[in-house]
Amino acid sequence: MTNETGGDERDRGAEDDRVDEHDHGDARDAPDAPDHDAAQAHDGGLELSHVDRHGGVRMVDVGEKAETRRRAVAEARVWIGPAAATAVERNQVAKGNVLEVARIAGIQGAKRTSELIPLCHPLPLDHVGVECRLDGEEITILAEASVFGRTGVEMEAMTAATVAALTVYDMLKAVEKRIEIRAVRLLEKSGGRSGTFRRES
Amino acid sequence: MTNETGGDERDRGAEDDRVDEHDHGDARDAPDAPDHDAAQAHDGGLELSHVDRHGGVRMVDVGEKAETRRRAVAEARVWIGPAAATAVERNQVAKGNVLEVARIAGIQGAKRTSELIPLCHPLPLDHVGVECRLDGEEITILAEASVFGRTGVEMEAMTAATVAALTVYDMLKAVEKRIEIRAVRLLEKSGGRSGTFRRES
Amino acid sequence: MTNETGGDERDRGAEDDRVDEHDHGDARDAPDAPDHDAAQAHDGGLELSHVDRHGGVRMVDVGEKAETRRRAVAEARVWIGPAAATAVERNQVAKGNVLEVARIAGIQGAKRTSELIPLCHPLPLDHVGVECRLDGEEITILAEASVFGRTGVEMEAMTAATVAALTVYDMLKAVEKRIEIRAVRLLEKSGGRSGTFRRES
Amino acid sequence: MTNETGGDERDRGAEDDRVDEHDHGDARDAPDAPDHDAAQAHDGGLELSHVDRHGGVRMVDVGEKAETRRRAVAEARVWIGPAAATAVERNQVAKGNVLEVARIAGIQGAKRTSELIPLCHPLPLDHVGVECRLDGEEITILAEASVFGRTGVEMEAMTAATVAALTVYDMLKAVEKRIEIRAVRLLEKSGGRSGTFRRES
Amino acid sequence: MTNETGGDERDRGAEDDRVDEHDHGDARDAPDAPDHDAAQAHDGGLELSHVDRHGGVRMVDVGEKAETRRRAVAEARVWIGPAAATAVERNQVAKGNVLEVARIAGIQGAKRTSELIPLCHPLPLDHVGVECRLDGEEITILAEASVFGRTGVEMEAMTAATVAALTVYDMLKAVEKRIEIRAVRLLEKSGGRSGTFRRES
Amino acid sequence: MTNETGGDERDRGAEDDRVDEHDHGDARDAPDAPDHDAAQAHDGGLELSHVDRHGGVRMVDVGEKAETRRRAVAEARVWIGPAAATAVERNQVAKGNVLEVARIAGIQGAKRTSELIPLCHPLPLDHVGVECRLDGEEITILAEASVFGRTGVEMEAMTAATVAALTVYDMLKAVEKRIEIRAVRLLEKSGGRSGTFRRES
Repeated sequence: MTNETGGDERDRGAEDDRVDEHDHGDARDAPDAPDHDAAQAHDGGLELSHVDRHGGVRMVDVGEKAETRRRAVAEARVWIGPAAATAVERNQVAKGNVLEVARIAGIQGAKRTSELIPLCHPLPLDHVGVECRLDGEEITILAEASVFGRTGVEMEAMTAATVAALTVYDMLKAVEKRIEIRAVRLLEKSGGRSGTFRRES
Repeated sequence: MTNETGGDERDRGAEDDRVDEHDHGDARDAPDAPDHDAAQAHDGGLELSHVDRHGGVRMVDVGEKAETRRRAVAEARVWIGPAAATAVERNQVAKGNVLEVARIAGIQGAKRTSELIPLCHPLPLDHVGVECRLDGEEITILAEASVFGRTGVEMEAMTAATVAALTVYDMLKAVEKRIEIRAVRLLEKSGGRSGTFRRES
Repeated sequence: MTNETGGDERDRGAEDDRVDEHDHGDARDAPDAPDHDAAQAHDGGLELSHVDRHGGVRMVDVGEKAETRRRAVAEARVWIGPAAATAVERNQVAKGNVLEVARIAGIQGAKRTSELIPLCHPLPLDHVGVECRLDGEEITILAEASVFGRTGVEMEAMTAATVAALTVYDMLKAVEKRIEIRAVRLLEKSGGRSGTFRRES
Repeated sequence: MTNETGGDERDRGAEDDRVDEHDHGDARDAPDAPDHDAAQAHDGGLELSHVDRHGGVRMVDVGEKAETRRRAVAEARVWIGPAAATAVERNQVAKGNVLEVARIAGIQGAKRTSELIPLCHPLPLDHVGVECRLDGEEITILAEASVFGRTGVEMEAMTAATVAALTVYDMLKAVEKRIEIRAVRLLEKSGGRSGTFRRES
Repeated sequence: MTNETGGDERDRGAEDDRVDEHDHGDARDAPDAPDHDAAQAHDGGLELSHVDRHGGVRMVDVGEKAETRRRAVAEARVWIGPAAATAVERNQVAKGNVLEVARIAGIQGAKRTSELIPLCHPLPLDHVGVECRLDGEEITILAEASVFGRTGVEMEAMTAATVAALTVYDMLKAVEKRIEIRAVRLLEKSGGRSGTFRRES
Repeated sequence: MTNETGGDERDRGAEDDRVDEHDHGDARDAPDAPDHDAAQAHDGGLELSHVDRHGGVRMVDVGEKAETRRRAVAEARVWIGPAAATAVERNQVAKGNVLEVARIAGIQGAKRTSELIPLCHPLPLDHVGVECRLDGEEITILAEASVFGRTGVEMEAMTAATVAALTVYDMLKAVEKRIEIRAVRLLEKSGGRSGTFRRES
């Protein structure tokens, strides 16, 4: 993929549903920039805003966003090689049904996204779906997450796909040591202020 | 990468430290094969062995293995594109220091491997190390795990690398929507019965 | 209890608040049946629906359901035998106050339901209540859960009752090895599309 | 089952691998009894021992016990009724393969025993095995756990069986509301000071 | 601080957003008092109310409360001594950037409040912010949490501040063994029925 | 407490059981210092050591340490004020028995230390004990943790004390809003290379 993330893309990034672009855009505030979030939150005279302005990890405050139906789909591809592919196809893997265990692990993984990713918000997910499919020497995983809430679920979809991919690795590593997770990426995202994103190819 | 997992590789696989190869090798037992683990475990006349023989998910029993110092190193590469790369380089990302947060998330993720991967054993890890580095338009993550125990730590290293990669994605997704995790794979592994594995290239 | 789960019961099951009966009822879709959920979700042309149609684990999508006040009550009964019953009655158990610890464990267990049960949705519970009572040689546990949400809380009530029961077992197992958890079951459920369920006897 | 937990049983209980019987046996110390554990632990003159002597929740200190190979097997039986039994037999349950999902949930549940049961010790389990089988209108679950350690694994086996049973309930509750978990109990236990326990009938 | 928690304070306590004061006020019901919550919940004739009336741990039922924007700020102060203060100031601590790691740990800790504090409700937090600052020989931590929900977030703010403080301790304990966490306390709280609380000095 | 952490104290700190003092002492390596740990671990030619040398969060590698019996005791003091003290003394708190719930929460909290504190090692604890006592207008909490392992348990003792203190706050906050956690600190520690530490006064 060539890089084409020019101005347009960044402008859309500026409407992303997890970032309050009026304040910090896609880059940290300059030291003297007003820090709206912190100011608004700490009208009691606390000194948070000062410290905040100079950087440091920060979770986006989604309290002012609208609750909408949000949905994301991510994909992971895992190269497993010919011997493992044959074992999966014949369901002859010692540890069990690879595709089914990966699916369950992916669903459960999505529910723990906010524990794994430091700045993610905990969300009462409405749905997580994970599909796994053998494609030649690869296993393709599609993961979908949705919620009615104030922030998007792309990390949940990404986490589901990734945990499913790791599970594929774990179940097949005795057959093939060179298994490789390739191309974990977002395919689709909708429901936020930035509208619908759909990956082309 | 072409597949060269021929007989030799599988033979080494047959000594892998998480699979009891005398019983089920790299594929499930034939229905009439003796099932050593189950038989040994259930000498009390329980019927587990029967059900077991017909398939179903199974965790490897590591109780008979020797405690040795085990270590694994995994790598993840994340394409972030030029705009995000510039933001990382200048430490101008709104959410904070990307490489540092990813590192911490990776270390913490490794400690939760057995919760995420259904058939992994819980392990009292001696060490987890995660390094993150900007390489052009990519972030390269190296994760190492080690333990003195009865089973290997490659899943811990793989999980650390993957969670760090997801964290990179999360912190930069407002800047670049097409971020892609690439090439999560094992680089090195030592301490098990199969000796030391080192990935070439 | 005799089985009387005939047609009527299944019809009511068809309105259950966690299953979208128009699509898959109480049994998996026939291979050629239209799969509404998947189709609706993946109008972007993803291939999830295809894989989905052929089976595999699936979480119910509750995104289209109405938010209502939902509530469930479950019961567990634990036979502890006469020696343990005497110890509980006199509050002479070495590990502490059995009924109180079980109560707390049940409340905390309910909050982790979606981590334990693979297809359960995470829910911001409004309330969990657990009561424990010594009845002769048994301890009776009643657990209630409630939420204002899109899906029911019977698994939360069942999990609370069960974790409390396991805790009773743990605290008394030094006194009586043959402790047995009996009759974990739903007593009541309300707030979903299927109306109120109340167990008779 | 009639109660036969007389003197002999209690004597064996007195050797149970999680209770230090020289101090508190199957009942709390009398207020003026010497409290060996506390005294030993707090030779620095802290006042823990005093408070301790008067009761309150306490975890058994296993630090002085020998590391041995410990193993336990538990059983759960779940009545699911005829309609659900037919659906399971034909693998026609909308949510997926009931027996397989229950198995995975049981294995994962065992790994979280010490989080769920307040006084359980965290353990690096060597093995967890869960089997599920349809028997008429019941599903029978057998769960085994083993470890090389200082304390037994019966709670891990009990938790695995119970979480598998709850998962069976969850996956079939749309078909049958009166599902009931019956008879969760320990079948076998070995490796502790009290020798091998095997349940009769 | 002198104690001035007289009648007025308790009256305000009576409007606290986590306690239904009409029923149980700031103290447990007298044994013969009517128990509104339990009665309301269990109109099906369950016996919960009876057991409940006699005490035992109870979570507040927040189901009848209004959803409002709730926010809390807590503070922790950690004395680290002069040697550690110098190491922090120069960013020369072997384990890494103390203030940054503490910040991340605090944010992640807030998300786990309901797992740690037995009677806390799980909440889909909108925001957690943690600031850490070196003040002479102390590190001052400010933690803020907010949610749109039915119950307050003061425990989330308190937990964030405390986990950040423990992390400071962990990272500096090789330099100074006498580190001491001092003065974890609520500074501000708003959004509940009792109005805004602001700590004076 | 005045600061007296002079040279002697730091020398003892240099033997602390969680830090490899030959390499990084109580402060980060100078950029050109040899990095023993990284070098030893990465003899395969990986580039971790290079990145490592320039800083960033790091967990101490305890793999080379001896397994010994390690133990730590921590203390927390919570000011609760006179009204809450009276309610605790009379066991009249609406939410339940404050001291007992705090004890259980502390024990459970200790088991999660490595999840909360980023650089802590997961440990199979042999024992956690928590005592709570009302002292005038304060509640005093003593927490002890022990393990036979390669690293100390002071963070486990500190976490147990702190979580118990937060639980006291939670259960009494409706009675007294100005509750304050004071003086969480290590009292005693033994079993590591640095010998026994005992806090004076």
